[in-house]
Amino acid sequence: MYAPGDVRVVDRPDPRITKPTDAVIRLSATCVCGSDLWPYRGAEPINGPSPMGHEYAGIVEEVGAEVTTVKPGQFVVGSFFASDNTCAICRAGYQSSCVHREGVGGEGAQAQRLRVPLADGTLVATPQVPDADLIPSFLAASDVLGTGWFAAVAAQVRPGKTVAVVGDGAVGLLGVLAARELGAERIIAMSRHGDRQKLALEYGATDLVAERGADGVARIKDLTGGLGAHSVIEAVGTQESMMQAIRATRPGGHVGYVGVAHDVQLPGDELFFSHVHLHGGPAPVRRFLPDLMDRIWHRRIDPGKVFDLELPLERAADGYRAMDTREAIKVLLRP
Amino acid sequence: MYAPGDVRVVDRPDPRITKPTDAVIRLSATCVCGSDLWPYRGAEPINGPSPMGHEYAGIVEEVGAEVTTVKPGQFVVGSFFASDNTCAICRAGYQSSCVHREGVGGEGAQAQRLRVPLADGTLVATPQVPDADLIPSFLAASDVLGTGWFAAVAAQVRPGKTVAVVGDGAVGLLGVLAARELGAERIIAMSRHGDRQKLALEYGATDLVAERGADGVARIKDLTGGLGAHSVIEAVGTQESMMQAIRATRPGGHVGYVGVAHDVQLPGDELFFSHVHLHGGPAPVRRFLPDLMDRIWHRRIDPGKVFDLELPLERAADGYRAMDTREAIKVLLRP
Repeated sequence: MYAPGDVRVVDRPDPRITKPTDAVIRLSATCVCGSDLWPYRGAEPINGPSPMGHEYAGIVEEVGAEVTTVKPGQFVVGSFFASDNTCAICRAGYQSSCVHREGVGGEGAQAQRLRVPLADGTLVATPQVPDADLIPSFLAASDVLGTGWFAAVAAQVRPGKTVAVVGDGAVGLLGVLAARELGAERIIAMSRHGDRQKLALEYGATDLVAERGADGVARIKDLTGGLGAHSVIEAVGTQESMMQAIRATRPGGHVGYVGVAHDVQLPGDELFFSHVHLHGGPAPVRRFLPDLMDRIWHRRIDPGKVFDLELPLERAADGYRAMDTREAIKVLLRP
Repeated sequence: MYAPGDVRVVDRPDPRITKPTDAVIRLSATCVCGSDLWPYRGAEPINGPSPMGHEYAGIVEEVGAEVTTVKPGQFVVGSFFASDNTCAICRAGYQSSCVHREGVGGEGAQAQRLRVPLADGTLVATPQVPDADLIPSFLAASDVLGTGWFAAVAAQVRPGKTVAVVGDGAVGLLGVLAARELGAERIIAMSRHGDRQKLALEYGATDLVAERGADGVARIKDLTGGLGAHSVIEAVGTQESMMQAIRATRPGGHVGYVGVAHDVQLPGDELFFSHVHLHGGPAPVRRFLPDLMDRIWHRRIDPGKVFDLELPLERAADGYRAMDTREAIKVLLRP
């Protein structure tokens, strides 16, 4: 990305092993993230041309001398933050705050090849190279599925609970899927777009609410005996969406927020009297990868459906455009 | 309280049963709360002369026709919010957000007698009238002990964890006691006042940190291998104390905040990347009362030590002054 709205596909040197804990993978697929739209829309600064992309799945080509858990030829998925998976923070399940974490986005996963640091702690391999039709689902596990899943876990989704989901992008939709898998009794998807409503219903939504803001909150209250939802997933990251999530949650309920916060200020007094639990942040996808990849491998879940447009990597700019204009929910790029 | 700094003891009509669910109690003791200092210091508006006080323990004098669980002659403790203890929110343990909640502070517990609404759902009786020396501890259960306890529970204090406590008022000190009772391995009290440090150590603090703000956070990191505490109790309610609590918590850790928020705005991006769990609000003291009263009855805990000044109710103004100037941690008033 050269500037807001200006995405170009250019030749760059192939990534190489630079540390003995690195791996280099050949991407089977990559994609454009909702968070990539923040700089694309000028809502986040870009300092000169920046490699983009942080979602990846592919075949290991080479590993450093110290890598022991993955080997060339294996199909692997990793998260946007590389982690050692051994420090106290990782062991507590917060690999995206690993004391040795490194972003993989710096080198850009919207590419043919990617160097992944801390390969042993970051990458998870499938039993065998998967069938081609499963690739989109495994790619989804790299971020949007893991993020929606974390949001549902952070929102303490459990059997019998009513869950509301704020945001109908890929993460929100996969939050619906996660809520269903975690046993939610009722799942209210807040969406005003027909194609996304349809997918939300496929993924397990039991109710749709098209209203937003105060009206949206009032509808959630109507649907929950005036109390609010037990669990609310926030998957947008704006002031409005955060307040909508907090206000739609009953006292003692849980908000799981994973939309990357932009210009959000939470009023302490309202939060205090809301009595909600608040938890979120950059999803520790690595915590969930073995379980999620197992569910995909056995075709129990189909998160790849969020990719409703597939383009060759060369057409990345068209992919950004389609997501920016909401023509596509999420764009898969084939290197 | 007639105005900031202006507290007077005046004659008012005795409270009476106004609803069949009410009880009237004769107070054995009442007290001044840290939160009473907000209006006293002009940091919260007062609309004309206002009855003050919301902490109470005493003997039931009269009950309404529908009250079944307490009866005249019993010694009872209740919380600052009356609750039905039967609605979905109460059953989830959030009695201070009960759908029928009523503040008892409106009539003022700094008095000889108090009408308590929803007596069945609010009051808890002791097996017999307790010995006089236990009265201060039972009075503490009405708010500051229950609030410190809730903060520790909200901060997920568990055996083996390191807990930091921001705030050395009565609530913070009883947060230390709660952390010890809940099995914390290490309890770091942040305090710069000798008398409070001493009580913190008696209540189970293993470390004292006198620094505040960024320096205080740095000390907590030093004491925890650079990671931060697992659990942090926030018992002040200012912007500085909230940020200190959030920054002193390790990723994946828990902040339990019970200081009544005043002019607090939490920056969404910092909260997002902090990876902390945030929970708090007005403590649902009623959830904990049976357990806490049992511990006091059997003399396993001595929360009444936070009262380091006792005055007759007539001298309430002196009590406010002593707390405002920090001459006293907490002032007990004898009606």
